Amino acid sequence: MQDFLQPIQPVARENIKKARAHLDNLTKPRGSLGQLEDWIAQYAAIKGPGNCTLESKAVFLFAADHGVAEEKVSAYPQEVTAQMVLNFISGGAAINSLAGYAGAELTVVDMGVKSILPHHPSLLSKKIADGTRNMAREPAMDRQEAETALSIGYQLAREKAQAGVDLLAAGDMGIGNTTSATAILSVMSGQPVHELAGRGTGIDDATRQNKIRVIEQAINMHRPDATDPVDVLGKVGGFEIGAMSGFFIGAGASSTPVLIDGVISSSAAMLALTLQPNLKDYLFPGHRSAEPASRVLLDQLDLSPLLDLEMRLGEGTGAVMAMCLLEGGVRLYNEMATFSSAGVSEKNSAQ
Amino acid sequence: MQDFLQPIQPVARENIKKARAHLDNLTKPRGSLGQLEDWIAQYAAIKGPGNCTLESKAVFLFAADHGVAEEKVSAYPQEVTAQMVLNFISGGAAINSLAGYAGAELTVVDMGVKSILPHHPSLLSKKIADGTRNMAREPAMDRQEAETALSIGYQLAREKAQAGVDLLAAGDMGIGNTTSATAILSVMSGQPVHELAGRGTGIDDATRQNKIRVIEQAINMHRPDATDPVDVLGKVGGFEIGAMSGFFIGAGASSTPVLIDGVISSSAAMLALTLQPNLKDYLFPGHRSAEPASRVLLDQLDLSPLLDLEMRLGEGTGAVMAMCLLEGGVRLYNEMATFSSAGVSEKNSAQ
Repeated sequence: MQDFLQPIQPVARENIKKARAHLDNLTKPRGSLGQLEDWIAQYAAIKGPGNCTLESKAVFLFAADHGVAEEKVSAYPQEVTAQMVLNFISGGAAINSLAGYAGAELTVVDMGVKSILPHHPSLLSKKIADGTRNMAREPAMDRQEAETALSIGYQLAREKAQAGVDLLAAGDMGIGNTTSATAILSVMSGQPVHELAGRGTGIDDATRQNKIRVIEQAINMHRPDATDPVDVLGKVGGFEIGAMSGFFIGAGASSTPVLIDGVISSSAAMLALTLQPNLKDYLFPGHRSAEPASRVLLDQLDLSPLLDLEMRLGEGTGAVMAMCLLEGGVRLYNEMATFSSAGVSEKNSAQ
Repeated sequence: MQDFLQPIQPVARENIKKARAHLDNLTKPRGSLGQLEDWIAQYAAIKGPGNCTLESKAVFLFAADHGVAEEKVSAYPQEVTAQMVLNFISGGAAINSLAGYAGAELTVVDMGVKSILPHHPSLLSKKIADGTRNMAREPAMDRQEAETALSIGYQLAREKAQAGVDLLAAGDMGIGNTTSATAILSVMSGQPVHELAGRGTGIDDATRQNKIRVIEQAINMHRPDATDPVDVLGKVGGFEIGAMSGFFIGAGASSTPVLIDGVISSSAAMLALTLQPNLKDYLFPGHRSAEPASRVLLDQLDLSPLLDLEMRLGEGTGAVMAMCLLEGGVRLYNEMATFSSAGVSEKNSAQ
């Protein structure tokens, strides 16, 4: 626990002012790139004046199974988690194509897939157990397992940042994990489950009602303590969610910007942010997911998501798409002429 | 005129069904990429089964001056149009960085900049006149000039498509051109000017009120005929807007998908769509601009814009950012495994 409770340095306000001043001096009407400018300024401020590099990018995809899948909360059978991990390492999933397009290195992390997976250079085995326990009947994991999940993600982000990566992103795979993420976001926000539960991979009304009932039952049974994110993670979380929480904290502790994906990584970021409020300065929300629960985290952040496309795939796909937009923005931040260097007249002083 | 009134072939509905069926067979929950899937399906349908290439991309940036600039409708002086053209060919503008990131070839077209511009390999001189006339006092151009502008854009798109480019985009530069675009979109939609006029490059309330008055005066004076887009273009349009209209039609006539940028290209697309209703199948709206008038065109299209970032820069910047997202999407359409090829279980039949 000690590691990921070390203080995270907030980003210097002075750096943000300098980055905004630089943006305002480039040959475009002030603020004309809209919300993208907020992202560019925050990114440049994290990197510090004169150092706004965005070269190496990495996305980590954390996979795990969920005992609660036996409550029939998902449209897909549990074995799809392992099948999709094999698909990731074979290069056949959406995240493979999108990470390839974005130029981001993809690493898949087995945090607890209920299957024996092969050795592969892009698959890290960090299996804590063969999936969590069924939270509808007992806590998903014990406190030690929750801390282990956090530590694994934290270390992975720290190591990658120390290796010099400029930008990180986290994605997920785990049948049943919108159930867990919705439970976390309901507990952390106090908002009722029925207002937050979505359709996950595409469940019908009856399955969604069952999912709501299962989440409410788990929360009522275990009474997770919203002031203690490790308690919440252990009782209704998942191994991949814990790892993502630790990953976000590790990124912040390394002063490395990190992209959040959809509702699963939003639930992880919500736990991380409660443990480490200064982390907020390093979190970039890739997109607004179709899952209603994702708004709980978005309401906590200063930056708005760049994309709002009703995506609900996970894997880090929304994060990596936003990565492309940010990279274009960083490129213009570094390359564009200023009004004086290009000899372009500034705005009329009267207006 | 004959050329750009030749029929445009609608995209075969059968192709769209096939593209959607392919998307549904890929290893992701059905529809889980949200609105991006609509874009991918439309793009794949245009290209035809087995031929969904997206390799070469080109963005054309049409520049011209507007006589109405003398009515003080912009935050910037008129000479900025020429200064920015020099900036484009020197590589110092936002579009240079973003087109570079997207891998799109950039061509700047002088349609009527009020300045003598140097020869440069990436600058095409198609100057019709030294800017339009002031529409607040007389028609911006005569009908012959309007048809010439349309023809130039049409030919450029046709030539580029014949050279084998997969995807086109159009952007603009012209001080005063949101005044012209807003006039066009008001005439074509019948919506009042004061509901459509925005802040352009960043004008204050008094300047915006003046801009509304100028547009209303021009419309009342010239009475453009909304059923005759060439008449509207001539009376309240711009040379770059006419070229962009022709460019969109040329793309459609070549069965080549083309990206719309902000409010200027939206006004051009509105004229083009009225001349050629089947063009709709080839138009991809890059983003929702901060300019209220852009919604007039978006309401006519089946596809939603991929970005909504309150951008108001022009130059093709929003179009090129959306190009990146589409390219990522096309890549996964071509690369992803299917459920059967990857051995991934499909959705439970009960749901």
